Amino acid sequence: MKYLATALLAATFGLQAAEQPKNIIMVVGDGMGPAVTTGYRYFADNPDTPEIEDTVFDRHLVGMASTYPAHVSGLVTDSAAGATALSAGVKSYNGAIAVDVDKKPLPTVLQWAKEKGMKTGVAVTSQINHATPASYAVHNDSRKNYDAIADSMFDHKINGQFVLDVMLGGGWDYFIRDDRNIVDEFKQAGYHYISDVNQLSNTPADKPLLGLFADTGMDWALDMPNQPRLKAMTETAVKHLENDKGFFLLVEGSQVDWAEHGNDIASAMAEMHDLALTLEWLEQYVEQHPDTLVVVTADHSTGGLTIGANGKYEWKPAPLKSLKASPINIARLAVKSKTPSSVVAEQTGLRLTSKEKKAINKTEKDEKAMFKAITKLLDKRSNTGWTSSGHTAVDVQVFAMGKWKQQFAGHIDNTDIPKTLFQMLGKPQ
Amino acid sequence: MKYLATALLAATFGLQAAEQPKNIIMVVGDGMGPAVTTGYRYFADNPDTPEIEDTVFDRHLVGMASTYPAHVSGLVTDSAAGATALSAGVKSYNGAIAVDVDKKPLPTVLQWAKEKGMKTGVAVTSQINHATPASYAVHNDSRKNYDAIADSMFDHKINGQFVLDVMLGGGWDYFIRDDRNIVDEFKQAGYHYISDVNQLSNTPADKPLLGLFADTGMDWALDMPNQPRLKAMTETAVKHLENDKGFFLLVEGSQVDWAEHGNDIASAMAEMHDLALTLEWLEQYVEQHPDTLVVVTADHSTGGLTIGANGKYEWKPAPLKSLKASPINIARLAVKSKTPSSVVAEQTGLRLTSKEKKAINKTEKDEKAMFKAITKLLDKRSNTGWTSSGHTAVDVQVFAMGKWKQQFAGHIDNTDIPKTLFQMLGKPQ
Repeated sequence: MKYLATALLAATFGLQAAEQPKNIIMVVGDGMGPAVTTGYRYFADNPDTPEIEDTVFDRHLVGMASTYPAHVSGLVTDSAAGATALSAGVKSYNGAIAVDVDKKPLPTVLQWAKEKGMKTGVAVTSQINHATPASYAVHNDSRKNYDAIADSMFDHKINGQFVLDVMLGGGWDYFIRDDRNIVDEFKQAGYHYISDVNQLSNTPADKPLLGLFADTGMDWALDMPNQPRLKAMTETAVKHLENDKGFFLLVEGSQVDWAEHGNDIASAMAEMHDLALTLEWLEQYVEQHPDTLVVVTADHSTGGLTIGANGKYEWKPAPLKSLKASPINIARLAVKSKTPSSVVAEQTGLRLTSKEKKAINKTEKDEKAMFKAITKLLDKRSNTGWTSSGHTAVDVQVFAMGKWKQQFAGHIDNTDIPKTLFQMLGKPQ
Repeated sequence: MKYLATALLAATFGLQAAEQPKNIIMVVGDGMGPAVTTGYRYFADNPDTPEIEDTVFDRHLVGMASTYPAHVSGLVTDSAAGATALSAGVKSYNGAIAVDVDKKPLPTVLQWAKEKGMKTGVAVTSQINHATPASYAVHNDSRKNYDAIADSMFDHKINGQFVLDVMLGGGWDYFIRDDRNIVDEFKQAGYHYISDVNQLSNTPADKPLLGLFADTGMDWALDMPNQPRLKAMTETAVKHLENDKGFFLLVEGSQVDWAEHGNDIASAMAEMHDLALTLEWLEQYVEQHPDTLVVVTADHSTGGLTIGANGKYEWKPAPLKSLKASPINIARLAVKSKTPSSVVAEQTGLRLTSKEKKAINKTEKDEKAMFKAITKLLDKRSNTGWTSSGHTAVDVQVFAMGKWKQQFAGHIDNTDIPKTLFQMLGKPQ
């Protein structure tokens, strides 16, 4: 049905059946299951209007995708198998970086785009050699081989060229090592290198670009409040990648997942906000560049997050809106203070009850324990529930922008996304 | 875009723009959030094939809907406000049965269908005067007024006629009372009355039909294993409602929600299975009757169910497939036995470990405590998580069958469903 509709639209408007997107931007919200996208709507809602406003996610929902990995890993995927499914269209084992269950390398949509002469890039808030970007760009038996994956990002060539023209995210720990300085190697090979997000907007697009902004993952969105870092990186990546032959860009809101692993709802909402701002910018971009397709999905859901818990029919995002720093950074400040509860009150922007103050002040002066106390306080205020520090198997949503969006509609499997992209990019079956 | 595609399809195939469905079947999976539909796919999967089969839900997914109630009730809806949103297209307070926040009656799609001369019916596994069917048929300030709602189902008239031509579900406690016997009243008014599901298939369709099969809600699907009761009721309802002017039927898988309120994953899966069999029958029906539209959604999600929990990357539905009775009925049997663990092992079809046996045998001989012990055992075996005995706010899926299905696609609000149905049924704005 959806193919028929697309074909009819094409026929009616005189588009050639063969017309395919020039630019493809794949956006992954790591750990972005349906509870966190729904929660974000209520978090982002303008309380001064009677209606609840749609989010950018709402405007572009087209369907949902199953996420299970290869049979050997059961039904709950990790980010590596999830990214491999999304990049190569093949189910693999948890931990696999674009290799199949026999550990054989799998061609990815990003690599195929490069093969075709398109420019390619990644813009992520994790280290750039983390599971998701790695699974689009290179191959490895295990996501844990961070150094080897970083090496591959320089060493792996497609038709004699570097696989990525633009790399933006974190990763100094892996790219500037005692045994190898990959940043220097990229510089010598003709790449611009930047190490401060403030350089993003004023680096000329005359050369390929490597930007690393943190040892591993970037700072939490809550700790960079005036600078939506994913949006800034995405804008710069697109500007650097634009060219006559088109581009393939992978964007990842990597830390939605990390916040949920820590059962930290305030950070999850702030990471979703940076991702939403990125998508709003892409929404405008697609409007101005109708030759561009944007597909957005998640690799899996994380934390067993539920918006509403404990038998109470309520979820209250208001207490999550006034934080001045991430809960882990608030914890770091609080344990240094003689009255941790006053630091927590000041930094969360909440007026604490005497019971809440007591709970914070009696927490042992350990960052991790204090972090747990703060996130527990925010869970209680918002009535947020969690069942896990890991992932769950619930289907994730699929969003798309651009005239090809219906090709991703309805229920699909995560592997169907790259299968469709490969087809659009003319890869022989 | 979706309207454009629909219009183009209509134009191309020479359908009149004004062509509207003759029959509308609205299906509500009470409490059927995205975790339970995803879980059902893995529960229903044939383990003898390498691939994971799509379910009937997968085949018909078109989008998702937000479910929040009127502002006064926060962000998490109950089944009454949820059903009022779905029946009347208006957000109301939790507890409202087709009345607005000022307690004024709201016209419903079912009532409007009756007004237009179509036949109408409800087929549900709850009592027929429970929140969802009540909100389609009648009006009340509070879902708790069960007797008054039952009374209204006889007393409320549309153009001098009974509002419902077919009523199938539970409800003796409310329809056969000391102060009023509504069953007798319906019989005297010319309705067939049946009280055994075995009568469903052989009651002639010459008169309207009331079928009540339980004091309140019907027995759990797990306790009627050879008789998919919702499917049987739906088939009978459709057969009785078919007529030249068309019909509007509300079908509800009511007890998915009830199972989740009890954090009972085995019953939730069995209730989903009865609902899935019903939808498979409807899938065939729409194929044979292309003048029929089926829309399927949930009123909300329940239990904070997550498939995967406790930091483990697994969800294992196999232990949920061998139960011979519902956990509550197994508990009833177990507390009567000297060795409860042997009853639990026999009835769940599971070989219990000595630790599991010990946990069951040391449970106090109280049905509720035993039920908790059994559901906890099944949660542990399957690695299922819960955060609540109540509802949550996550968006629910929307499924549709029939040539109008795209009118429900993408992200919508639950109130958009009846708004579209009212339009199809020609209600003046």
